[in-house]
Order: sequence, then C-alpha cells, then structure tokens
Amino acid sequence: MTDDTDPLASQRDAENSALEREAPELFSALSPLGRRATFPPDIPAQAAEARGTTYNATIGQITDGHGRPLNLPSMAAAASGLGEQERAAFFLYSAIGGIDEVRRRWREWQRRELHRAVESTLPIVSAGLTSGLAIVADLFAAEGQTVVVPAPYWGNYRQVFGLRRGARVVAAPMFAAGRYDPRAVPKALDELPSGETAIVVLNIPSNPTGYSPTAGERRELVAGLAAAAERRRLVVVCDDAYAGLVFEPEIPALSIFWELCGIHPALTPVKVDGATKEFAFFGGRVGFVTFALDPESDAAMAMESKSKCLVRAALGSPVAASQVVLLAALRNPDIQDEIAAVREQLARRYRTLRECLAAADQTLVRPLPFNSGCFALVELPPSVKPHDVRRHLLTHEDTGLVASGESYLRIAFCSVDNDEIPELVRRLERGVAHMVGARVD
Amino acid sequence: MTDDTDPLASQRDAENSALEREAPELFSALSPLGRRATFPPDIPAQAAEARGTTYNATIGQITDGHGRPLNLPSMAAAASGLGEQERAAFFLYSAIGGIDEVRRRWREWQRRELHRAVESTLPIVSAGLTSGLAIVADLFAAEGQTVVVPAPYWGNYRQVFGLRRGARVVAAPMFAAGRYDPRAVPKALDELPSGETAIVVLNIPSNPTGYSPTAGERRELVAGLAAAAERRRLVVVCDDAYAGLVFEPEIPALSIFWELCGIHPALTPVKVDGATKEFAFFGGRVGFVTFALDPESDAAMAMESKSKCLVRAALGSPVAASQVVLLAALRNPDIQDEIAAVREQLARRYRTLRECLAAADQTLVRPLPFNSGCFALVELPPSVKPHDVRRHLLTHEDTGLVASGESYLRIAFCSVDNDEIPELVRRLERGVAHMVGARVD
Repeated sequence: MTDDTDPLASQRDAENSALEREAPELFSALSPLGRRATFPPDIPAQAAEARGTTYNATIGQITDGHGRPLNLPSMAAAASGLGEQERAAFFLYSAIGGIDEVRRRWREWQRRELHRAVESTLPIVSAGLTSGLAIVADLFAAEGQTVVVPAPYWGNYRQVFGLRRGARVVAAPMFAAGRYDPRAVPKALDELPSGETAIVVLNIPSNPTGYSPTAGERRELVAGLAAAAERRRLVVVCDDAYAGLVFEPEIPALSIFWELCGIHPALTPVKVDGATKEFAFFGGRVGFVTFALDPESDAAMAMESKSKCLVRAALGSPVAASQVVLLAALRNPDIQDEIAAVREQLARRYRTLRECLAAADQTLVRPLPFNSGCFALVELPPSVKPHDVRRHLLTHEDTGLVASGESYLRIAFCSVDNDEIPELVRRLERGVAHMVGARVD
Repeated sequence: MTDDTDPLASQRDAENSALEREAPELFSALSPLGRRATFPPDIPAQAAEARGTTYNATIGQITDGHGRPLNLPSMAAAASGLGEQERAAFFLYSAIGGIDEVRRRWREWQRRELHRAVESTLPIVSAGLTSGLAIVADLFAAEGQTVVVPAPYWGNYRQVFGLRRGARVVAAPMFAAGRYDPRAVPKALDELPSGETAIVVLNIPSNPTGYSPTAGERRELVAGLAAAAERRRLVVVCDDAYAGLVFEPEIPALSIFWELCGIHPALTPVKVDGATKEFAFFGGRVGFVTFALDPESDAAMAMESKSKCLVRAALGSPVAASQVVLLAALRNPDIQDEIAAVREQLARRYRTLRECLAAADQTLVRPLPFNSGCFALVELPPSVKPHDVRRHLLTHEDTGLVASGESYLRIAFCSVDNDEIPELVRRLERGVAHMVGARVD
C-alpha cells in the first residue's frame, strides 16, 4: 500500500505559478527540492484555523485545556530565574553534540528502568524530535528508498523522509478488523524486492492513534522484524516522542528500542526521543538521537562524528537555552514524580474520553483502539468526509479537531480540560449526526 | 579557483572503516550523505582543544573574555523571570513560521535605517543563522550547482551547501595584493559556463576576516553583480550574521541586501540574519530568512509556504523559548542603546587589537585588512604552518587561536577581554618567532 498520491499537488502548482508570474527569475532559480516544497495543510494549519474555539483538541501539546502549559515545576522554576552559571550557559553556544551534562543525564534517564545489559551511545542533541528524525533520515534514507510506517501515521514523516530525502513512504495498516495488527509491518516488508534495505518507523505510543501494543503484540512485532531482517537489512527508527505516556497497567511503557537492540545483526535500531512531550517542553526543541552501540567503541565515535556533522550543517549548534532549562529537571532527583503528576492528569482525561466515547452512538463516532499518548482517533461513517465534519464543528460547534486520512478525526485530549471532554464528545456526536443527516436529506 | 580538495577524506575513511569493522550492517545501511558525513575539525573542534587556555580567542561568541556572556540587559531580565504569558509561550509550540510578533518586530528592526522604499517579506524564523542558510540551500542549491564565496570564508558553508546539497563551493579570493578585491566574485562568475544559474554568498562583515567593504568597494561589487546578472541568473545570499558590528565611521553598516533589492531582474537577493550575534544570543538559535518581495504578494506567500514546509521537515517548529526571550529585547524601545553598548565594547577591543598588531613584527604576524565583526586574520610567514603554530600556542603560550586555510590564524577578539589583547598579541608574536626559529635551526 504505497502512499504515492500527492494531496498537495494543486497547492504546490498554484504557488509555483504565482512565483512564475510574479518572480520568474526567482522561480527559475529554485532547486528541485525548492520546487517540491509546499507547506502541508495538516495539523499546524488545522490548529491555526481552530484557534479561539472553546473546545480545541487540535494540537498535540500538553496544556491545562486553556492554553496554559502543564510544565514541570523544576523547569518552570528555571524559566523564572536561572543561577549565574546557568544564565551564562543559556546565552552561549552549546557544544555541537549538546551540553555534556545534558547528554549524560538524558542517557541515565533513558536507561532508568532497564534491567539488562544493553548497549546505547551517549545521545546527540537535536533541535527537537523532528530534527532528530531529519538527522536519521540524512544518515540512512536515500533517494527512492522505502520507509515503512504503520498507518495512520504522523503526516510529517512525508516531509522528513519523502520531501527532503526523496524516500518512498509506504503505509502498513496498523489496525485490521478493529484490532492492532503486529504483522502489518513485516507483511509490508515482505512485498519489497528481496534484499533491498528498508527503513521502518515505529511510533509507540502513536500519533495520531494513541495506541501502544500489548506485551503479546509487541513480542509478535519484534519477532516479525527479526524474521524480516533475515531477508533484508533493516533500520528501525523508534520515534519515542510520547515515551512514558501509557495509561493502562498491562501495556509496556519501556521503549521498544531496548527490545530491538541486538536481536539481529541486520537490524539497526535507532532511538529518537526528547523533552518535547516527555518533559512537556514543546517550545524548547530539545531532541536526542541514540544508537545501539557500545558507547566506547570506534563505531559509536564514528556515528557521533557523522551526526554532529549533520547538526553542524543544518543547525550550527543545538539550542543551549532550552538545554539549560531541561537540565534543571534532569538534575532534580524527584523528577519522576513531576513527570508522573503530568501523566496522571493525562490519564484522567484519557479515562474520561474513553468513557464518553464508549457511551456515544457508535454508528456516528467509533473510536479506534487507544491506550496511551496524547490522542484518540474516531472513525466517521463512510457517508461523511472528515474535513467537512471538521469545518462544521469549527463553525457550528465551537470545537476544533484534526481531520486525518479518509475517515478519521483526531482528538488531542492532551490539550483539553478534563471537565470539558464530555461536552466536546457531545458536540462531536451532534456534529457528525448533523452532517450524516444533511447528507441523507 | 575551486575548493575540491577534501581535507576530511582520511578522517571519513577511518570512521567508515570503523563502522564497517564493528557495525557492518549499520555501515551498509548508510545513505550516500550518511557515508560522506564527518565532523569537520574546524572551529568547534579547535575551540574544544583550546578550552581552559588563559588567552582564548577561538570562539566567535561575544563574551567578557572570561566565559561570561555580554548579554543585552532586557534579555538577561527575561531569562531571570518571565511574566505569566511569556512563560506560557516559552514552553508551548511556536507557529511554524515563527511567533507573529517576533516576525513583525524583527522586520521593523531590519528596516529601521532604510530611507527608501524597498520591498521585503515578513521574515521566517529559523533555528539560528546556519538553519536559515540550510533553508536557503534547500530552496536554491541543487546537486553540482556552483556557490561562489569570497575567501577566506566560514568553513561551514562547505557542510551547508556542499555536503548537504551536493553543490560545488568555489572560492573567490577576497584580497589581492593585501587589499579587498570587489571584482573577485564577478570574475569567479565569469569563469562559469555561460547561462548557468549560480549562487553567491556574501558575508559582510566577514567571518573569518572581519572585513566589510568601503562605500566605494561596495558600489563596485554591486555593479559587478548586476553586470554578471546580465549573463546568468544569480541568487545572492546575504549572510548578515555580524550585521551592525562595524567599527569605522566610513564603513557602511547597513546590509548590502538592501542595495541588491531590485537592481536586476535576474538577481534574487535573500537575507539571512538573526539574534545570534546581533543580539548576542548565541545559545538561542533564532535566525530569519527574508526575501526581496512585496510582503502582500502571492509570490511572498508562496515563498513563505515553501520555507515553512522546509522548517516543518527539518525542525518541526522553531524554538519558542528563545523567541520569547528575544521578544523582550525587540519590545524595548531603547534596544538600540543596549546593542550599542555591546558594540562599543567590541569596538574598544578592535582598536586595541589594531594597535597591537600594527606594532608587532610584520615579518612574523601580518594582519589582513579588518574593520568590523568579531575577528581578525593574521598571515604567517610561509615557513610555518598555521596548525603547528596553533598547537605551539596551546601548549607553550596558554593561548588559543584558530588555524584558517594554508597561512592564517584567526583571532576572535569578541571573546577576549580588552586588557588581555596586548599580552595575547605578544604571545602570538613570540610563538611564531619560536616556530620560525625552530624551522630554521
């Protein structure tokens, strides 16, 4: 199932025509990438349209539901006054790989619940999760190369791997008959030409589905990837943006990266994580790239050199200011408690949303499985289009949601007050009912 | 004069061999870009080696000479305590193009001394100057395309344009017979195949030379570029990192971008600037990309869409935290005074360094012309190698400088206390004398 339709083509054509008309020499000077580039009207664009709605569940950032951040107290304290040394570091350049102490402490944080000997490098600091993915894409994705991603997936993978690097993003349907399908990625890999190196992106918990596999599903997925590595070289990118935001006790919360380390020589796992969601620092842009290598090895040093080269080429150096604020949290021995407090708020909203969606008319809004992260997806009746429902909710229900794919709406419960979730679901249900009725009439 | 030697080849080969030996499947999975990437042992690497020296003039960041930032009081105040609204914006996502007020106020700042009607777009926020250059490289640089840069130039252009985009960086010697040569870039352009689109990067004031052309030299340069645009399409990237840091009253301080706007239809000027040096916020990573287009035009909207797409693909969103701190400065009606105070400190060091270098033995250290920015270059006698002198200064003179090209050392006076400049020059002179003597013996 290839994602080779291009919903952006008409927008791109209109923009290129405008340039050809109004700035013809500039247009002619554009690179092939410059000609392809056009800002996707996806989540940021839809969020911009929803600004000001009372029930705004568009943006995947953790707030109190009224536009204020739910930040960690130790980081809020840092933003309200840094010590002299920290203030100096805030204003001055970071080392290219990141501030040493931040890298060391992040590595300890990553490995805090590991109970076995697994090798991992000192992480390289990127300018947020996307920047980490872009570094990995630079390192591994070549023109025409296949990147298999469980679908529905975060649309920006198309920009990171497809637009920038010319790779081919292939969707592997995450759910079959309403259940998670751990065979989806291995099956998609099986359809590729034999021996061809492939990239897989695993985003657990997932954006936009809010789903994390159970322990059994995970075992099957890991075994399927190991079997696929018998037939081709694999780079498995673990996009751990939502790491730790797991709300059901039986769902494994530890990154799948650790289970992939060392399972097969032809399988190269890479971990991309960061402070954006895990430490609720959306505006900070601190991400990390970690390889499954002995940190003292020459191979680790080589990957560090290559990663730093790409940071140098695209960013100069990573953000020192945000690293300093993050460091205040990483130095706090009780940071787990601060993070647990944010997670508990999200868990409450998750339970409220589950209950409300379970009580809703399933012929109008049918939730896909979700158990973690910041989002839930609801499937709409086939007679209505998500973008039409989204626009109706904006204009008639004071409610902002994100249209996703051909049949889904995404609810970002991370940015909705718990008390407002029941009303949000009522409005969603009413809006869909209206659109279905309007369609039938 | 092409820069097609690759001083990094042996380092890259060693790293690739280490990977091939220790992580062969990872090595085989690397993209062509991933194989090429290797961290250049240029300024950051040399600065790392010089850490701890008393006379450390390696890093191009503005400090008090003892590792403390010379930051703007309004930004220091912001870092010592943000209001509630600002703190929220600090932690939450920025709009993809940047925070609206930051963009508007930066545009006013850019245009503050413009006395004619020149069109320029609302700037797009990047993650610092390099990130702005990377966006411009994505937009305009194609595989094999020529990028003409006055030399000596900032080595990272090779990563931004060469390594990442596969463009060919061509050096145009900035000085001829000890004087600035405004014909250098036009001459280098004349040697290219007729009709081929070329990119030119102008870095005024320059890193590493600290030189800005006089009004006459500028006129000649602008005329030469306009003449070259008769024969080929040109994209002229104005890397205005050091904008405003001009220390001689007769040297024009306004960006050359404004003089290039509208001079020839086949010449597309692009401005890349930012808070890094202009607002002494090295750790913040706030840069801007500006086009010479009517901000209300469809062409401007198209370039905004394309730029935002590339920000989305590489960064997700720009740094909100740093934009909020920069905003405190941009809102201050007296910010010019704060910036002038930093510039005055640099101007004092500049005058001290000029005097000391003029008094030094010119057969040992011959300064190239400099009048602006953060740096000065000194030419060494042909009998010694800059890297050897650099190492000698590190180990025997407690002094850190950066080796540049085949015959220069760069002095970053922006990070040296004024009172220590005379001793630094004495040590430099003594170190060169020792190396020349050692060589003769």
